Amino acid sequence: MNKISITSPATIANLVCGFDILGLALEEPYDIMTLETGDRPGLEIFHLDEHGLPTDPENNVAGAALLAMMEELDSIPSWKLTIDKKIKPGSGLGSSAASAAGAVFAANALLGNCFSKDDLIRFAMFGEKVASGVKHADNITPCLLGGVTLIRSIHPLDIVKLSAPELFITVVHPQIEVRTSDARQILKKDVQLKQAIKQWGNIAGLVAGFMQGDHALIGRSLEDVIIEPVRSILIPGFDEVKQNCIAAGALGGGISGSGPSIFMLSKQKETAAAVETEMKKVYTRLGIAHKTYVTMLNSEGIRTL
Amino acid sequence: MNKISITSPATIANLVCGFDILGLALEEPYDIMTLETGDRPGLEIFHLDEHGLPTDPENNVAGAALLAMMEELDSIPSWKLTIDKKIKPGSGLGSSAASAAGAVFAANALLGNCFSKDDLIRFAMFGEKVASGVKHADNITPCLLGGVTLIRSIHPLDIVKLSAPELFITVVHPQIEVRTSDARQILKKDVQLKQAIKQWGNIAGLVAGFMQGDHALIGRSLEDVIIEPVRSILIPGFDEVKQNCIAAGALGGGISGSGPSIFMLSKQKETAAAVETEMKKVYTRLGIAHKTYVTMLNSEGIRTL
Repeated sequence: MNKISITSPATIANLVCGFDILGLALEEPYDIMTLETGDRPGLEIFHLDEHGLPTDPENNVAGAALLAMMEELDSIPSWKLTIDKKIKPGSGLGSSAASAAGAVFAANALLGNCFSKDDLIRFAMFGEKVASGVKHADNITPCLLGGVTLIRSIHPLDIVKLSAPELFITVVHPQIEVRTSDARQILKKDVQLKQAIKQWGNIAGLVAGFMQGDHALIGRSLEDVIIEPVRSILIPGFDEVKQNCIAAGALGGGISGSGPSIFMLSKQKETAAAVETEMKKVYTRLGIAHKTYVTMLNSEGIRTL
Repeated sequence: MNKISITSPATIANLVCGFDILGLALEEPYDIMTLETGDRPGLEIFHLDEHGLPTDPENNVAGAALLAMMEELDSIPSWKLTIDKKIKPGSGLGSSAASAAGAVFAANALLGNCFSKDDLIRFAMFGEKVASGVKHADNITPCLLGGVTLIRSIHPLDIVKLSAPELFITVVHPQIEVRTSDARQILKKDVQLKQAIKQWGNIAGLVAGFMQGDHALIGRSLEDVIIEPVRSILIPGFDEVKQNCIAAGALGGGISGSGPSIFMLSKQKETAAAVETEMKKVYTRLGIAHKTYVTMLNSEGIRTL
């Protein structure tokens, strides 16, 4: 094989109570990436979109991930990567992870899949470092594995894919900027033990709910008493969106990643559509430009076209 | 039916990282309880053991639970309860919960099972209040439901039984006193967010490990970075017991309830026996009287004889 095209999906990290540990993959939006063997040893990057992302490999998220992989190869490959980015950078939907994970997934396919999934996560984390300064795997893991994923531990890396029932997901991306660094700094360093216990009861309930396919339990467990009360103040309209979406039948939801996107899970497609209407209403009234998606849990992750 | 005899099992609460939320039931030890219809309206309690527990219903754990149930009946029943307690009070193995849960389970059977499991937990919690001053459900829930149980929330009560693979369990009860009030007071009110995240990664891993029947994942997740480092100083020999048991092949383990008993989970029966040897060695060397059990996960809970 000397050419491969893939779709690399958007992902939701910090799944409500599962801050830093639980994430999931979406059917839409997704980036389209093509990796092909060229003539000259090294890596060339081209963008078909208009986000103005850097094309030199060291400063490009996909490039940095591929360079990390190339360091473990015996000879320098000749690669040409073309990216059509549909996941808007800064949306909180794992745009950088889609680039990093998609690139190493495609390269691994060209190499005859000589690397494991854990290796790919490790390489892709170098891309995340370029994007945000931190080698986190919160979005990379669901992007590569699909479905709902748990990062039990990052050092050493211990990831678990959880079974989950069919879920419809509605996302609204209000076009405001929330800096990841602000979202991090605003967090308190200490939490009350009492609140932590409440949080881990919900986390256990959420994992059990996914694995038992119990939508009602998933809904009851979608509660974050630690991060959301602090971070949601950075997102205008958050409380109203959440309240109205749950009133419209959503199981629950919260901030996607560190925002500004907000997501809601629903059992039925019709509910997910009604939830979209509520999201649009709030941001139209607030006069904030926004984009919405009505999509599903993506159980596969990255797909070969 | 006018007479029923049951076995009510020992339980382990505060399952390592699952402080206040996860518990499990043991095959042994268990109390034997007989409830029969008498002639005089009201409740009489008799003990076949020599623990010297009170027999007046208000001050007896089983009695208080039955009185709570009787308040919701249309007429006063005539009940005679006989308890043969094999689970030593103060062992950290849910002795009071076995009394309270066993009593209401037996009474419900005599009443034609008119109450739900949630009702029984609610009644039994009045027994726990007599025992420790707190209406907790940590031991009652696995005692009544069997297997591994999650208390997602206590107000409102939301309990989930988790599927789990076959597990062998070794317990050592060093005959020292750890007051529940001391074990509570010693806990810090605040925890670092960083540590809380590590804890909830392990909780999610433990729930997934049980439900996937993945013994290795269970083992990796049996880590408590918040409660155990503080409470274990109340139990002489704890660190050595834990270290030696894991070296002998145990998946992991920790303090049972608020101690002083220590438990270890193993995949194989032979490992559980080797673990017992290690436990005995430590407490024999320390000159502390102790009792050990090599038993299994009890998936049913209370059983009718």
